[in-house]
Amino acid sequence: MLNFQKYFSEKAKRLRASEIRELLKWIQGKKIISFGGGIPDPRSYPVKDIAEIAKDVILNYGYKALQYGTTEGQIELREELLKFMRERANVKVESIDNIIITTGSQQSLDLTARILIDPKDVVIVELPTYLVALYAFRDHEPMFYGIPMDDEGMRMDVLEETLKKLKSEGRRVKFVYTIPTCQNPAGVSMSIDRRKRLLELASEYDILIIEDDPYSYYVYEDVPIDRLKSMDSEGRVIYMSTFSKIASPGLRVGWVIGEREIIEKYVIAKQSVDLCTSPLAQYIALEVIRRKVIDKVVKTWTKKYKAKRDIMLKALEEYMPDGAKWTKPVGGFFIFLYLPKGLNTKEMLVKALDRGVAYVPGQSFFVDGSGENTIRLNFSYPKEEDIERGIKILADLIREELSKK
Amino acid sequence: MLNFQKYFSEKAKRLRASEIRELLKWIQGKKIISFGGGIPDPRSYPVKDIAEIAKDVILNYGYKALQYGTTEGQIELREELLKFMRERANVKVESIDNIIITTGSQQSLDLTARILIDPKDVVIVELPTYLVALYAFRDHEPMFYGIPMDDEGMRMDVLEETLKKLKSEGRRVKFVYTIPTCQNPAGVSMSIDRRKRLLELASEYDILIIEDDPYSYYVYEDVPIDRLKSMDSEGRVIYMSTFSKIASPGLRVGWVIGEREIIEKYVIAKQSVDLCTSPLAQYIALEVIRRKVIDKVVKTWTKKYKAKRDIMLKALEEYMPDGAKWTKPVGGFFIFLYLPKGLNTKEMLVKALDRGVAYVPGQSFFVDGSGENTIRLNFSYPKEEDIERGIKILADLIREELSKK
Repeated sequence: MLNFQKYFSEKAKRLRASEIRELLKWIQGKKIISFGGGIPDPRSYPVKDIAEIAKDVILNYGYKALQYGTTEGQIELREELLKFMRERANVKVESIDNIIITTGSQQSLDLTARILIDPKDVVIVELPTYLVALYAFRDHEPMFYGIPMDDEGMRMDVLEETLKKLKSEGRRVKFVYTIPTCQNPAGVSMSIDRRKRLLELASEYDILIIEDDPYSYYVYEDVPIDRLKSMDSEGRVIYMSTFSKIASPGLRVGWVIGEREIIEKYVIAKQSVDLCTSPLAQYIALEVIRRKVIDKVVKTWTKKYKAKRDIMLKALEEYMPDGAKWTKPVGGFFIFLYLPKGLNTKEMLVKALDRGVAYVPGQSFFVDGSGENTIRLNFSYPKEEDIERGIKILADLIREELSKK
Repeated sequence: MLNFQKYFSEKAKRLRASEIRELLKWIQGKKIISFGGGIPDPRSYPVKDIAEIAKDVILNYGYKALQYGTTEGQIELREELLKFMRERANVKVESIDNIIITTGSQQSLDLTARILIDPKDVVIVELPTYLVALYAFRDHEPMFYGIPMDDEGMRMDVLEETLKKLKSEGRRVKFVYTIPTCQNPAGVSMSIDRRKRLLELASEYDILIIEDDPYSYYVYEDVPIDRLKSMDSEGRVIYMSTFSKIASPGLRVGWVIGEREIIEKYVIAKQSVDLCTSPLAQYIALEVIRRKVIDKVVKTWTKKYKAKRDIMLKALEEYMPDGAKWTKPVGGFFIFLYLPKGLNTKEMLVKALDRGVAYVPGQSFFVDGSGENTIRLNFSYPKEEDIERGIKILADLIREELSKK
């Protein structure tokens, strides 16, 4: 048997499997209440609509759906998204040259890392932030700086201070990566004032902003959620979203919007990564918009997800011991739980799984290594009737753990 | 308007659009006989079968087809491929842990580069080789060494000499990348003796072999084409193939087979690249095998592609001027044309396009910068009735160019 270690690249040697992934593997097939994944309720997938659409699309577009596509994406879908973004998100860009279709948001993040990050470049993220974005960025060896959040999202005073300090040290800051609306994992949304300030700071310190926006379709309160891209007068914002939460993650179709010069680089980078995103999947995505399937899904599931959030918030209120705090998300899929210092949620996970509840320990979402006492709770996936029971089990466990301290 | 150059990574600054890609763009919508692309005849796509399958798959697999999948790929497809590879290619591996599903062969190449190549590692390729593989590898800054081919494929005497020399210089050779059967772009297939010798040399010099095998489904002569992987007793061969030529490139589904330890690294690397390949596309691929759509496509199109090859070979024989030579492929999609030295096929392309014929200048397939006088001719895509006419136009042009020298 060969020892393959010696063939692997230095980067590959450092690669470790994701904890979330390993966790999800562990619970496969087990009867467990899962607050772990970050996935939609599978009942939200418009199975019948997509079955019809898939067949129609292949028969109508014929060879075009089954052929290689251009790397930038099918023209029809980019045109439809141009309209979709204008109507739905007030994001107005000139032409389809400002849009590239990607094989899901994860590819958007991977391509972003490829075209922007040199080793030792500074990348600024939220504390906590989306774990698998960190994986994509990490491969290009940036230095991460984390900015804490409060109820209004990323703290702009700390960001300014950090940018000032980094500038005085002559460090090169490439971009701020943010999920301003219904953040993953924290569930927080950035206030409008903070959004304005972020754009001002980006301009002042001459950096780019990556706006990752998968969740803003599901907002449960009447709060303004203007996309950073809609407020961007200088072209500094690179915006990305996906069909994963509004139609089906199984399609693997996302998109990136930015200045033409930037999108061109994404296109060239994508070419050596996968040539093109499945035209079949793209045409399905196109029809999912045209036939208003998305409107239907979003309308129905905004209500249902809101109900799930409310059940979880109520259960947290009822069962959690003193000293535990959590975010009150206005939308999205997540609530973030801060337990008293001293509790280690990674160690506690084994016991939670034993009792039939899964969650993601929060620490890996923090680039500064903090968050040992935090937990990401997903409320979109578990069934309504399981949420309260799951939270009670978790609360009891936390109470027991606290009593040992 | 911002100047985005300063934000791009050093690698991104070096990225250039592919010539093939730019070429294909140029001819879009124009009436031209194209020997340029490397794509199947679109009439080979089983449109009706896939339309039915797509609908069935979504209704039968329901949420599973529209949900996120595991990064390694759907279990059912990996099980089917295990059987498929055993029956069709005599490639026997232990379990589905030896297989990862990828988002097309281009992703297989990209992941290979990520997990194996450190800057300055030596990567050995054929002269000429598949251009877009070079793009994927190049991103990780290897040193390329090219090994010339003759009618029996890569010359093992030159390979041995090169390996010996590199070893004496203390250079680190990671792998040999080869398309042993119906090579792209040369159309050559490696003889069995050379295949055996390649495996011996890999063992002696302790290197890996990447066997890229998209074309071996289409072999037009009764010649043995034993896959390197089927002869691999040490686990040195990483094998890759795709559904692009036997069902539809628009699915974007490929696979990689190798030792478990290697496949595990592919899986971890893939996770940060695109999380998973579309389960919908994977289930379609599964049913395309199960319902024997592939058998039908391959049976029908082996005959048709053979006819196209024969028309092109006959036309070359009839029209090409003295001094022009070309390969006689036993299968696949390509004939490679060597013109007399002094002709520059890149410069000549503009004139060819003017006269209504497209091809790919061969130089970019050569890592040593040679091949200025070569041309890749694709015979799978153009219509039967256009092939002779196109070759005549090209031959006339070449004759004129030669007369000017």
